[in-house]
Amino acid sequence: MWKISPYLMAFGILMSGLLTDMSVKAQEQAPDLDQEAFFIQDLHKKTLSESVAYDWLKHLTKGIGGRLSGSPEAAAAVEYCRQVLDTLGFDTVFLQECRVPHWTRGETEQARVVNSTERGTFDLDVLSLGNAPGTPPNGLTAEIVEVHSLDEVEQLGRENIEGKIVFYNRPMDPTHLRTFTAYGSAVDQRVWGPARASEYGAIATLVRSMTVNVDDVPHTGVTVFRKGERAIPAFAVSTEDADLLSHLLDKEGHLRVFMQSDAAMLSRKKSYNVIAEKRGTTHPDEIILVGGHLDSWDVGEGAHDDGAGCVQSMEVLRILNMMDYEPKRTLRCVLFMNEENGMSGGITYANRTSDQGLFHLAALESDRGAFTPRGFTFDAQDDKLPAYMKEISPWSTLLEPYNLYFKTGGSGADVSRLKSQGGLLIGYLPDSQRYFDIHHAETDVLESVNKRELEMGIAAITSLIYLIDKYGLE
Amino acid sequence: MWKISPYLMAFGILMSGLLTDMSVKAQEQAPDLDQEAFFIQDLHKKTLSESVAYDWLKHLTKGIGGRLSGSPEAAAAVEYCRQVLDTLGFDTVFLQECRVPHWTRGETEQARVVNSTERGTFDLDVLSLGNAPGTPPNGLTAEIVEVHSLDEVEQLGRENIEGKIVFYNRPMDPTHLRTFTAYGSAVDQRVWGPARASEYGAIATLVRSMTVNVDDVPHTGVTVFRKGERAIPAFAVSTEDADLLSHLLDKEGHLRVFMQSDAAMLSRKKSYNVIAEKRGTTHPDEIILVGGHLDSWDVGEGAHDDGAGCVQSMEVLRILNMMDYEPKRTLRCVLFMNEENGMSGGITYANRTSDQGLFHLAALESDRGAFTPRGFTFDAQDDKLPAYMKEISPWSTLLEPYNLYFKTGGSGADVSRLKSQGGLLIGYLPDSQRYFDIHHAETDVLESVNKRELEMGIAAITSLIYLIDKYGLE
Repeated sequence: MWKISPYLMAFGILMSGLLTDMSVKAQEQAPDLDQEAFFIQDLHKKTLSESVAYDWLKHLTKGIGGRLSGSPEAAAAVEYCRQVLDTLGFDTVFLQECRVPHWTRGETEQARVVNSTERGTFDLDVLSLGNAPGTPPNGLTAEIVEVHSLDEVEQLGRENIEGKIVFYNRPMDPTHLRTFTAYGSAVDQRVWGPARASEYGAIATLVRSMTVNVDDVPHTGVTVFRKGERAIPAFAVSTEDADLLSHLLDKEGHLRVFMQSDAAMLSRKKSYNVIAEKRGTTHPDEIILVGGHLDSWDVGEGAHDDGAGCVQSMEVLRILNMMDYEPKRTLRCVLFMNEENGMSGGITYANRTSDQGLFHLAALESDRGAFTPRGFTFDAQDDKLPAYMKEISPWSTLLEPYNLYFKTGGSGADVSRLKSQGGLLIGYLPDSQRYFDIHHAETDVLESVNKRELEMGIAAITSLIYLIDKYGLE
Repeated sequence: MWKISPYLMAFGILMSGLLTDMSVKAQEQAPDLDQEAFFIQDLHKKTLSESVAYDWLKHLTKGIGGRLSGSPEAAAAVEYCRQVLDTLGFDTVFLQECRVPHWTRGETEQARVVNSTERGTFDLDVLSLGNAPGTPPNGLTAEIVEVHSLDEVEQLGRENIEGKIVFYNRPMDPTHLRTFTAYGSAVDQRVWGPARASEYGAIATLVRSMTVNVDDVPHTGVTVFRKGERAIPAFAVSTEDADLLSHLLDKEGHLRVFMQSDAAMLSRKKSYNVIAEKRGTTHPDEIILVGGHLDSWDVGEGAHDDGAGCVQSMEVLRILNMMDYEPKRTLRCVLFMNEENGMSGGITYANRTSDQGLFHLAALESDRGAFTPRGFTFDAQDDKLPAYMKEISPWSTLLEPYNLYFKTGGSGADVSRLKSQGGLLIGYLPDSQRYFDIHHAETDVLESVNKRELEMGIAAITSLIYLIDKYGLE
């Protein structure tokens, strides 16, 4: 039996701690590229041959359907995902309460032109915008005024707007290569347009659908009335009908439109974020989050937006588990509630974890559809982003064979709320060309999701999460 | 009036020629990157806002439909494209005769299992393979033998094969990231499998459809019987049914299948490649070809394969024209006939132009679908390829902003026949993940083509053709 002085023992413990730290650092800073390339190849193969995410998505879409916050479908989705996550070998699966707006589209939703010289009376393809109020029970009829920007409403002034229906008709510009840029340049009309029109006395609003396609599919989405603003009915109109309205207005000078909707904002309801956690072995206080949002619009099935992001996030952790990978850091799968029309899940999660003093080293959101992977966009506090980008750049060698590229840019609406914690925020970036064909529309159904593309996305996200977990970020 | 000696005049002409050549070379070797970036951006914008290619594709698919060589639809497509090309400001539009095989699917095409203990009698989802003969008028019935390779047929030998139906069932491997690699590793079963089975006395063949999906859609495609080989009936069977057959064989040991088809190979017919040419201003003897193939399978509408490649090729030259670009070299749009089941258009074109002493500096084929662009693959004679790759590499700076990458690899079945001329052969490379969902199947219809992705491809191809034309290749 050896006798060791307490001093030596303390020294030994200290040294072993230092050595452990040093060896961890050394390992974390210099990935063995060959070995990691093999692991990443292997996880791609496993994902493409053994993924069950598409089956989960099938249940969320065909089994449950559109999952608007506050709806029975949203509640069913919370329970379904909680149960599935419970089977995947996490340390904890729990629900985090949040209060969500409860808006309903109602039963009646119609609009028609009533006095066209050329066309007489004809129906328009419309969808009420989310959070907008209904019309009076018997509807309303008024002349429409076409504008192309919020500023134009201001320029036209109350004398030209009062008592009328403002028709926003600035198209998404198809010449932008990135459809999200085109969306970002047009969506102010939908989000803020109705409130602006209301400010100048308009009684309702029509907004050209946010898509570059010219077709008969209307696309809904949230519109915002701030406290004190008078909420007025607001419909999205299909691009084909928007073009027709514009053409007839040019030719005939005046058009009157009838609108009817019993949409309504009900009292707020209780709902939940769904959270699953696997504790890290060596750095449990560093959380790496991967998530999507579980709510969707009520039209369509919320397949790409964002059922896909949810099942991808769940599957990322299942795949790592299946590969017997023991995470060093704490991995969390978070399915956020209410991204579409209030963001209460994202805000609740960020506030709650900040209050608890938790730290998200990295948080990735998949909410741009389940198309072929392109890469990732990275965001962080201004003073931290350059260092993060420098740290992750050596990994690009490992991901370029999968056509995955790194660039700076926004992450996701929910995880962006974690920015103040100082970690790295990540947006999964798939090909964007088809996304606005189906975004917030009846066409966002399972059939529009390609199983293989969904799975390629899972493998892409898993690869990055794995590298962050294994090598850390300073 | 000046008097100039004939000597000085000759010297002047010589010098001006030298200077022109020198300035051309200088210009050709050093593209002004800023200026070219602007031009390429502009052509992308014009394509995404003014392309008419989707309308042409609509006519080829919905107006005409599947265009199998020798069919009235193929003839209609030749005439339609000739007429459209005639309106696009080319110097010449002409048809080049070729003789094509004329295979017909006939009216009857069915297969069913007749003796399953578990399932009794049930139908299989099948499509006759192209160029395969029909069955006897009343069909045939035989036991099926499942194999996974051509070698396995040889190993089983005549004693196990004779009088039976060989069922090839090696799946496309979903773990290949590039679906064309998976296709290339499985398609020998369809192309050579029936002939191999016949060699050992089989009376018919079933081949698992070439797709990674597991569904009820059979995928046809060519099968080849060489001179002297006994042609036997051959059907593609859907992957779902292939899995079911394999499962039942495992369980029950024996299964008998009934097959009936009145497919037939008729006499060869006259058909055409469609060719449009715009003569180059300074290097008319250097031809730059862009093309696709006009024929397709008879099922579906030949939308991705390869109506898309045809209308993209036509549109490339229209866009350059619309931008008032005067090509230095001779640009040709070539729509090849009979790529699917004989290649007579590609062979005829290559032989004819070689006989005429023509030289194709570059030839690009678009025949991998109209999905989001990924880049280009380049091929040439072994001793020439490295120099070509070095020459084009500086252009990648101009194309990377569009996510277009250069790599070596196969070009296209038709243009590959031009290899002996020594020029650069190019395959347009779109994203491949969805291609084998629709390849050679009823699902290859206009609705599976995304207008925007089709147009992004046109802009990508136009950019490269423009750079080759303007800067040449040594």
